[in-house]
Amino acid sequence: MDTSEFRRRGKEMVDYVADYLEGIEGRQVYPDVEPGYLRPLVPACAPEEPDTFEDIISDVEKIIMPGVTHWLSPFFFAYFPTANSYPAMLADMLCGAISCIGFSWAASPACTELETVMMDWLGKMLELPEAFLAGGAGEGGGVIQGSASEATLVALLAARTKVIRRLQAASPELTPASIMDKLVAYSSDQAHSSVERAGLIGAVRLRAIPSDGNFAMRASALREALDRDKAAGLIPFFVVATLGTTSCCSFDNLLEVGPICAQEDLWLHIDAAYAGSAFICPEFRHLLNGVEFADSFNFNPHKWLLVNFDCSAMWVKKRTDLTGAFKLDPVYLKHSHQDSGLITDYRHWQIPLGRRFRSLKMWFVFRLYGVRGLQAYIRKHVQLAHEFESLVLQDPRFEICMKVTLGLVCFRLKGSNQVNEALLQRINDAKKIHLVPCHLRDKFVLRLAICSRTTESAHVRLAWAHIRELAGAVLEAERAAETKS
Amino acid sequence: MDTSEFRRRGKEMVDYVADYLEGIEGRQVYPDVEPGYLRPLVPACAPEEPDTFEDIISDVEKIIMPGVTHWLSPFFFAYFPTANSYPAMLADMLCGAISCIGFSWAASPACTELETVMMDWLGKMLELPEAFLAGGAGEGGGVIQGSASEATLVALLAARTKVIRRLQAASPELTPASIMDKLVAYSSDQAHSSVERAGLIGAVRLRAIPSDGNFAMRASALREALDRDKAAGLIPFFVVATLGTTSCCSFDNLLEVGPICAQEDLWLHIDAAYAGSAFICPEFRHLLNGVEFADSFNFNPHKWLLVNFDCSAMWVKKRTDLTGAFKLDPVYLKHSHQDSGLITDYRHWQIPLGRRFRSLKMWFVFRLYGVRGLQAYIRKHVQLAHEFESLVLQDPRFEICMKVTLGLVCFRLKGSNQVNEALLQRINDAKKIHLVPCHLRDKFVLRLAICSRTTESAHVRLAWAHIRELAGAVLEAERAAETKS
Repeated sequence: MDTSEFRRRGKEMVDYVADYLEGIEGRQVYPDVEPGYLRPLVPACAPEEPDTFEDIISDVEKIIMPGVTHWLSPFFFAYFPTANSYPAMLADMLCGAISCIGFSWAASPACTELETVMMDWLGKMLELPEAFLAGGAGEGGGVIQGSASEATLVALLAARTKVIRRLQAASPELTPASIMDKLVAYSSDQAHSSVERAGLIGAVRLRAIPSDGNFAMRASALREALDRDKAAGLIPFFVVATLGTTSCCSFDNLLEVGPICAQEDLWLHIDAAYAGSAFICPEFRHLLNGVEFADSFNFNPHKWLLVNFDCSAMWVKKRTDLTGAFKLDPVYLKHSHQDSGLITDYRHWQIPLGRRFRSLKMWFVFRLYGVRGLQAYIRKHVQLAHEFESLVLQDPRFEICMKVTLGLVCFRLKGSNQVNEALLQRINDAKKIHLVPCHLRDKFVLRLAICSRTTESAHVRLAWAHIRELAGAVLEAERAAETKS
Repeated sequence: MDTSEFRRRGKEMVDYVADYLEGIEGRQVYPDVEPGYLRPLVPACAPEEPDTFEDIISDVEKIIMPGVTHWLSPFFFAYFPTANSYPAMLADMLCGAISCIGFSWAASPACTELETVMMDWLGKMLELPEAFLAGGAGEGGGVIQGSASEATLVALLAARTKVIRRLQAASPELTPASIMDKLVAYSSDQAHSSVERAGLIGAVRLRAIPSDGNFAMRASALREALDRDKAAGLIPFFVVATLGTTSCCSFDNLLEVGPICAQEDLWLHIDAAYAGSAFICPEFRHLLNGVEFADSFNFNPHKWLLVNFDCSAMWVKKRTDLTGAFKLDPVYLKHSHQDSGLITDYRHWQIPLGRRFRSLKMWFVFRLYGVRGLQAYIRKHVQLAHEFESLVLQDPRFEICMKVTLGLVCFRLKGSNQVNEALLQRINDAKKIHLVPCHLRDKFVLRLAICSRTTESAHVRLAWAHIRELAGAVLEAERAAETKS
């Protein structure tokens, strides 16, 4: 394909994309296909000679779209949102064209420097303490990771290195293995599975702290676990506090947990993957109070801030804590500026070496929405969640399982788990909307997350009418079964 | 920005991208900016109210482009290539529009299934043993990772889990920590820094095996290290063989290393990040002989196979070895099909949870180039490297430092490291072309890698004339300094 054909096909693709997004409501949100559907539809091998673009674009509708779960449909209420916006897509086109790999400052100075500045912009939107910003007087700064999982892992590895060095400095006879054997990390029992996985990868114990009645990690339970572990000769070193858990959007009590971490010299990492975007609104910023105790903080603009995946924003209070865990400098990656205090080599901040020019997406989105536009977007989603909550509350057959703070509503039919499982099954079989469940303690709960940029009140009301109708059928079937038995 | 504005701006961006790539030769390949250049050019905070698209696109030329290292310039000969093609960019637009997050089969069946099939297509292009393919009779399959660094880490973690479980099964009293304390991984002293980093993250010893005169890991040196470690009570478990090292594109001797790994029950991972793309040409396939001994194999289509970053292709012989290292299943990620043998939940194959629909890029590129088009592209780069090699060989002041196999030429002025450092400095100061160096043993060596899709013979000849001219000036300056002293 030469440049002139790209001009033509690129514009066709722009229209295809626009048509897809404009017409997405007309597509069934969850596909009908069964596992293994795709392989028989495509040849067994790549073609020797080129296919035409027309072939491919027609196969997109024939082969791909029937198997797509449409995350951007206004009837998609599963998991958490994935961000999508026109400005981010435009920036991604530019990113693809430049194709630089920004592992060091020299590999593309603009790629590194725009990222540092955009992370400062975003940090200021959240009113992060100055210590986390690169342009301030402190030793902190931000980096774009690929995912919250990577951010948690990177924080855990940095904390592991730091505690090993500290203990070895005091007792040079200790080996890293003998220290690691005693390290303990902590998170709430509501934390995301990626925290457990970071513990597995980092080969350290992870303790799940029992959360309280509001699914929050509190001082008393954390303190108890720390005391028990220390009494057993173990070494606490790392705490993950979650703001906005995946199950039910609960918030660990940072103002209690933070001071304990400070007293005990534990690395505090905050995972606000979903909720973090909301902190750009003054009315939600209080949820972040206590961030001043953290060593690292992370959330995903690629979830709820209109920046397409991948863009996971991570800040640290002390840059050298991260880079100290990873720094390796082969000669082919050295460059003449690298010992200057002004430059950043982001390869020392992350697991992969390569990285795309992702900050362009932030730059386009922040500028084309403005802070007010972004705030309005968050507020609309929260308002839609409250609208759904109030609909649920009007139906005495249902209960709300968790206070609605942001864009997630946890609800269920009063009654058995079985009846709620049956309801979810019917919902996802009907495929008019898409939901996923969670367990809150022993309860099977339905989660409705406001996800799409184009979700409006009408979609929420249609979803609720549909759920009520199916609930009626489920309850009817249950009554019939009871009568029979 | 509404859909109709996106239609307009998207088409403008297509033209911007096309203009950028058509005119890239006219841009200075390496920027003039100094560290910290960008911050003063942008506001300290994000705007409250939206900027216009015109503002942004004009700032791209004013603020971004002056700080870009143009990796796609035909005068860029540094590091290794980064892939860029029109078909991949078109696919990426579609990927951005669908925006699904393919962590499980249910999260978007097409995203998972196309990836599995594309990895089979690519595996067949490379003539990988059937055991590595998902559609065959074996237990293997492919996955797209973000980078070779991640692939190496994932392989090491899977190997670590496997050996710990095996040893614990035999001796249940052993703790994971006591086993990890004895584990040893091996790679050549020429292996990429990401291997060392995987060892750091995985908290296992990594032994650098001295390479031979051709910078290859050989049986004798590996055998010696294994015997020494075993005698010391350590437990060898993992070997990384590199095909196409970053420094000089040397090849570890797979046909020697492979059988040792098989005898000793060591996980063999092959890192062919750069060179792997060449194995789609029958005349280079022999370089992969011995892959049948490997447990995992990885290379980067995002380097040299025209699939834009990120797309790192990894295959394993036994899927459950990978998934066994990571499998965690919270209820909100469970789905009804997941216990079927047909489906794949790629979240268990990788470090992050989220993932883009990256296989679309492979599908578009493979179909729009065809296998022959891809082979022609590889052959052209190799031919250009040989052309440069022959130019160097005609100048008695220079020497070739390593046999040219693929697209990389390692060369230097006969003489001191100092004179070669001075030459590189002049080259990169002049900014007509861009190179990075390497160390081969105690020698400072210049690397010229054919990188851009648009590099032609004329660019290589211009680069050589330029290097010769600067070499003349460097040698002149050296003579003058000698006369003076």
